[in-house]
Amino acid sequence: MLKDQDIQVIAFDADDTLWENEPYFREAEALFCDLLKDHLPNHIVAKQILESQVNNLPLYGYGVKGLVLSMIETIGEITNGKADFAMVEKVLDFGKTILNQPVILLDGVTEVLESLKGHYRLVVATKGDLLDQERKLKKSGLQGYFHHIEIMSNKKAADYRKLLKHLDCKPENFMMVGNSLKSDILPVLELGGNAIHIPFHVTWEHELVEQVPEHPRFSELRSIDELLTVIKI
Amino acid sequence: MLKDQDIQVIAFDADDTLWENEPYFREAEALFCDLLKDHLPNHIVAKQILESQVNNLPLYGYGVKGLVLSMIETIGEITNGKADFAMVEKVLDFGKTILNQPVILLDGVTEVLESLKGHYRLVVATKGDLLDQERKLKKSGLQGYFHHIEIMSNKKAADYRKLLKHLDCKPENFMMVGNSLKSDILPVLELGGNAIHIPFHVTWEHELVEQVPEHPRFSELRSIDELLTVIKI
Repeated sequence: MLKDQDIQVIAFDADDTLWENEPYFREAEALFCDLLKDHLPNHIVAKQILESQVNNLPLYGYGVKGLVLSMIETIGEITNGKADFAMVEKVLDFGKTILNQPVILLDGVTEVLESLKGHYRLVVATKGDLLDQERKLKKSGLQGYFHHIEIMSNKKAADYRKLLKHLDCKPENFMMVGNSLKSDILPVLELGGNAIHIPFHVTWEHELVEQVPEHPRFSELRSIDELLTVIKI
Repeated sequence: MLKDQDIQVIAFDADDTLWENEPYFREAEALFCDLLKDHLPNHIVAKQILESQVNNLPLYGYGVKGLVLSMIETIGEITNGKADFAMVEKVLDFGKTILNQPVILLDGVTEVLESLKGHYRLVVATKGDLLDQERKLKKSGLQGYFHHIEIMSNKKAADYRKLLKHLDCKPENFMMVGNSLKSDILPVLELGGNAIHIPFHVTWEHELVEQVPEHPRFSELRSIDELLTVIKI
């Protein structure tokens, strides 16, 4: 449970914290597995696409374009370079479909931001494709609530250190709210910041962490509206 | 020619202003045209890839990943969806080759930054893939010179307005240095800022502008070291 803290900045992860995202990726993954079902069973295809994505992360980074490129690469691996071009075209379409999806806010998000506004500096700290994250933020209608938007290429302790420096905020005055223990919670606790975990019903395998931390500056909530029960306003 | 100005912030474009970039894209384009030479003459392929890139800009944004996705799409259009998968694999390789290229600084860059350091707040304002631009900056060894790095999804007047607000800098105290009239010069002049154009020997067709502006806050130089002749230090 959180101790009484002098929180000044509250930073929100975006995908699957403010709005739905992972379900779109899961849908694309299911379609991709289906595309290759004559070659390999679904769970093997799913494993290979994850492997390819993770291998390509240092080069492509997070986001839809990297996923599409990794999927195309995986087609080559699975079919031994003998795939029909039609398969590639389908994968390009999966990507464009995700990029064109509507932004569906999670329950309670607007109300919580409305309540916190004016009491704290509110920030978005998200990773992914620059343009795609900006577009989603615009579509979300939430821009007006935020003092600053940080689109990060990664969310490790060093990245948060840079963000804190940029915001001129001490770790103890910073609170991160997000659905990924690995990206939103652990690196922030490591720096001496505060972190609130709100699990989403699906998490990308690469973001999974075995153990929920026990920490005086950590709290886990069931939904974003419970934030108002742990933060003073 | 520039009037005497009270410049406080000097922002540099990165690709083809601080380091070579367009030549890598040109090389990939030449290889791509060669790949399709049995289908169409080079200049037609070049035209189609440009068209596809520009059409996809609102969705993919600037950068290598968007180029690769547009190239793959173009293969489908040119071959009527009947391409060999080997072609797609080659294009994936073109992308990885660009992403792995060394960063070659343009002549005089380090010396100029060294001279300006301490006299002005130096900033990088670049567009492209977030991770790729960060990686190039790291490889360049220039990070230490810059107070702030802004990786932008676009470089229109509204984007510069946001940057100026973020830097807490008035347009008249801001100077942008870059190789693209369209992206580095015109929008900055429009806002009332100062702009210095240093043409690079190749420019992406989509960045070309017919007319060099005549403007009291504009100047064109032949190379970056001439900066020291127009800015007080």
